[in-house]
Amino acid sequence: MGNIPCETRITNAQLVDVFTGSVIENCEIYVDQGKIIDVGCHCKASAKQTIDVGGAYVTPGLIDAHVHIESSMLTPVRFARLVVPFGTTTIITDPHEIANVLGTRGIRYMMREAKRSEMTVFFMLPSCVPATPFETSGAALSSDDLADLIDEPEVLGLAELMNVPGVIAKEDDLLKKVAMTLNLGKRIDGHSPLVCGATPAYAGCGVTSDHEASTVSEVNERLSHGIRLFMREGAAAQNVEALSQTINERNARFFSLCTDDASPDDVYTNGHMNHVVRRAVENGVDPIEAIRMATINTALHFGLKNKGAVAPGFDADFVIFNDLTHWQVKQVLIAGKPVAENGSMLTPEPVIESDREVLGCVKIPMLTTEAFAIRAHSGKAHVIGLHDGDLINDHLTLEVKTDTKGFVSCDDNPSLLKLAVIERHHATGNIGLGLVKGFVKEGKRFGGAMASTIAHDSHNIVVVGDSDDDMLAAVKAIEAMQGGLVLVRNGRIVKSLTLEIAGLMTNEPAPITAVRKTQFINSAHELFHVKESMHPVMTLSFLPLAVIPHLRVTDLGLFDVDSFKHIDINVQ
Amino acid sequence: MGNIPCETRITNAQLVDVFTGSVIENCEIYVDQGKIIDVGCHCKASAKQTIDVGGAYVTPGLIDAHVHIESSMLTPVRFARLVVPFGTTTIITDPHEIANVLGTRGIRYMMREAKRSEMTVFFMLPSCVPATPFETSGAALSSDDLADLIDEPEVLGLAELMNVPGVIAKEDDLLKKVAMTLNLGKRIDGHSPLVCGATPAYAGCGVTSDHEASTVSEVNERLSHGIRLFMREGAAAQNVEALSQTINERNARFFSLCTDDASPDDVYTNGHMNHVVRRAVENGVDPIEAIRMATINTALHFGLKNKGAVAPGFDADFVIFNDLTHWQVKQVLIAGKPVAENGSMLTPEPVIESDREVLGCVKIPMLTTEAFAIRAHSGKAHVIGLHDGDLINDHLTLEVKTDTKGFVSCDDNPSLLKLAVIERHHATGNIGLGLVKGFVKEGKRFGGAMASTIAHDSHNIVVVGDSDDDMLAAVKAIEAMQGGLVLVRNGRIVKSLTLEIAGLMTNEPAPITAVRKTQFINSAHELFHVKESMHPVMTLSFLPLAVIPHLRVTDLGLFDVDSFKHIDINVQ
Repeated sequence: MGNIPCETRITNAQLVDVFTGSVIENCEIYVDQGKIIDVGCHCKASAKQTIDVGGAYVTPGLIDAHVHIESSMLTPVRFARLVVPFGTTTIITDPHEIANVLGTRGIRYMMREAKRSEMTVFFMLPSCVPATPFETSGAALSSDDLADLIDEPEVLGLAELMNVPGVIAKEDDLLKKVAMTLNLGKRIDGHSPLVCGATPAYAGCGVTSDHEASTVSEVNERLSHGIRLFMREGAAAQNVEALSQTINERNARFFSLCTDDASPDDVYTNGHMNHVVRRAVENGVDPIEAIRMATINTALHFGLKNKGAVAPGFDADFVIFNDLTHWQVKQVLIAGKPVAENGSMLTPEPVIESDREVLGCVKIPMLTTEAFAIRAHSGKAHVIGLHDGDLINDHLTLEVKTDTKGFVSCDDNPSLLKLAVIERHHATGNIGLGLVKGFVKEGKRFGGAMASTIAHDSHNIVVVGDSDDDMLAAVKAIEAMQGGLVLVRNGRIVKSLTLEIAGLMTNEPAPITAVRKTQFINSAHELFHVKESMHPVMTLSFLPLAVIPHLRVTDLGLFDVDSFKHIDINVQ
Repeated sequence: MGNIPCETRITNAQLVDVFTGSVIENCEIYVDQGKIIDVGCHCKASAKQTIDVGGAYVTPGLIDAHVHIESSMLTPVRFARLVVPFGTTTIITDPHEIANVLGTRGIRYMMREAKRSEMTVFFMLPSCVPATPFETSGAALSSDDLADLIDEPEVLGLAELMNVPGVIAKEDDLLKKVAMTLNLGKRIDGHSPLVCGATPAYAGCGVTSDHEASTVSEVNERLSHGIRLFMREGAAAQNVEALSQTINERNARFFSLCTDDASPDDVYTNGHMNHVVRRAVENGVDPIEAIRMATINTALHFGLKNKGAVAPGFDADFVIFNDLTHWQVKQVLIAGKPVAENGSMLTPEPVIESDREVLGCVKIPMLTTEAFAIRAHSGKAHVIGLHDGDLINDHLTLEVKTDTKGFVSCDDNPSLLKLAVIERHHATGNIGLGLVKGFVKEGKRFGGAMASTIAHDSHNIVVVGDSDDDMLAAVKAIEAMQGGLVLVRNGRIVKSLTLEIAGLMTNEPAPITAVRKTQFINSAHELFHVKESMHPVMTLSFLPLAVIPHLRVTDLGLFDVDSFKHIDINVQ
């Protein structure tokens, strides 16, 4: 009320007012103790210091409605430093990946680390861990496990209810998870790519958002059933171009923007939530509606009472843009303090010791090259045929050359690579084997092995190669690093990226990780001849996911997604 | 999913889809166990019975965002039967009036009764009881009292934070009420007529809605500060015409509709929430936006997860309209069952015994006519000058004729009436006296007394008259009725309306109460010559409210609102 001076006044702003949907010219914003005290053209407050933004646009801090931090390979603290300079001040994250490795211990780690970061991190609890019964995960999350977490104030609900058949079949423990979330008035996020017919059942069980829509008809069916659209533009999937045409002034309020997955190299190139907003505007969405989709719409949906608007009582998280066309972020303020300018954080990288709780997550027994022996004595094998730029694959049945004992080698079958998925959480010795076609450029040899501990959703070790010796060396390198990515040729490490935290993330800063990841991918393409159209790490990481058609390998063996059962590699 | 037949299918509907903001032609709705199972043009479900609505419009059940049930003079059960036939299936009520009489006991009574009604009733807890320290109320509600209620599932937050000076001065117990509400993630409703300058402080303390705006500038200031507008059209105030022009497609989502006060006679004439929708549309609001303001907007604001839309998982509360122009309600379904048709409930009035807890609320000591003696020995008195059609009054200083001892009689001063406010909760014998000008038509005599136990906000007995004998008789009649309205002439009751429940409501059915109230008002106008432009009951009931300018009377005496203190009637 003007009685006591505030800490900070921001002057000369063009404020994007998300409530009226208009821009307020020549606006002042008063901030004290991290909160907005007053906003307008005729404020009565006074302030100790002034930030003159020189006529720039001020928007609320951007909110990512759904993102898996782990897919950035960065810890929450490093991730925040990656994305905050691009205007993202709040995220709603689903720690699904680490939960598959470490269960509630992994989720608690993410919650602890998130509190140390500059941004506000809310959580949705992974609803389906393990993802399928056809693999061995590091942990399983029952409704009892989630009951310990669902009460936490930063937990907003249940993430990615992906088990649509489970919902429809009314699986007992899944329904318990749903009920306990709804009883607390928290939210359930959907995950239903292309399952239009099931939308009523899905909506009926309390799902009120979905980020998997990729077609216009999906959007309309979801909206009519009260399911909000989280329109996604991220490292793994880009839906903004296809979906923006469905947005109009009447339904825009039920859209939010999200990235789902972020990769540090992409973020440095394109930006983060500012890029999603830019893509929406490029595709015809009104700029203020686009900002609303990245701010107030998401805040209201999740009941974030102090986020998503520049108005009294709200947290003083702002993004300053020079224009609403290019969406270059000039400055970011969090809790009223400048934290990033012109793409960089204002503070140096902090020194952080890794939490022992999440280290040492690769436990495998002694292996020999025999582990990779594949027998197809019929001379015919089930083979995974990879697609370019698409995670769906083909289930091929191919003639293969074998030795006299029926064993298959890549030397005899130069178009094929061997694939192995090795259980790495409990040292069970489980290993699933398969053959892959289409990873390498036509007429080229891979010439070694590539291994990773990012392998959806159980994140066992996945290794591909044309040499049993190199495959073994790659797995041993992974074990030595206790997680990460490695390229091996002739028994020597060509390139590696250590992911020492749960085998999924690294404590290294984002810029270093971005460079290492780029170099790793370039090496895979240039030295190991992985097809240019194929993302080597992502392609490999989805080969064990037993819900994407048509043929997968888990640590329990080759898996036919169409018949939903494990099969032998040898065609009978 | 079509496996088991639903109870009911509604066919041939034009569904108002509040999510997409469009009308879906030829739509089907499937209902089972009170919930919507599926909605659309190509549903897979089957049903045991079919309701063909013949191409009529189907909207979600209408929600009144803010209403005081008590001002209808009806109990919650009777109130529901009054308004449900006009499409209102959910209300958010503030039991402010009964709380001033009976405190938490009164609120609990309303909660119990509400559960017995056909509609869904949510509560906002009265934040300021008593309204001022200048009167004696039946009860006071501290933050401790409210703490016992705020957890209840039907309680959505704190109502009418009307103590703006208290908010700004950071009054301790008020801030406790605010904090405990916000901590539970519940809502705080504002009440700030014309106090534009205080909006930032108001918003900053967590107020997110307000129903008192009556001008365009108030609307815009509130909206920009994140305060939603509850646009009101009720018995006591009508703001829709003035405010509708401020609504556009960008801000409509932040508007809700409410009545604030409903009178049974008005409702039978005009309707209830269907009338508010009609008024909005008549004043240029898009019909679908108007429906959203009476359904999903309010549900989302208050976090009512199953209300406000016709979509799977929502409660099966529908209104069937023949058109979106006249807003005549054809049929109302609640929880999938028809409950009203063509303006009437389908069930007969229930027999309900009144709850003893809320009876016997008029406690006064023995009075004589001396109680009404007014002395103005200076020959000059402070007099309340009533306005036509406006609750604000004038503070007049008039010459008065007195007898030799300085006592004022109405016989000697035919343009004046005596006014008395008698404490009726604790039999303290407190009585405040005043003189009133402008209640009666020019050149006519009142000729008796009128008394009421509806007297804002403490609801003491207010009595007005030109005969001390009749004033005493009126108060005695009120005591005998244990609450209500009465007109007395020559010691005999001319007309009365018993309000036996807390002195505010009656257990009689709405149609009877509507007729009695109309007859009472007509008698006041025709037989007692109250000005036609003046609502006799409402005018009387607001005379003790010590926050409306300029001169009031409470049980503690004459009160000057401008200097905010009690004054003597005699001008010194």
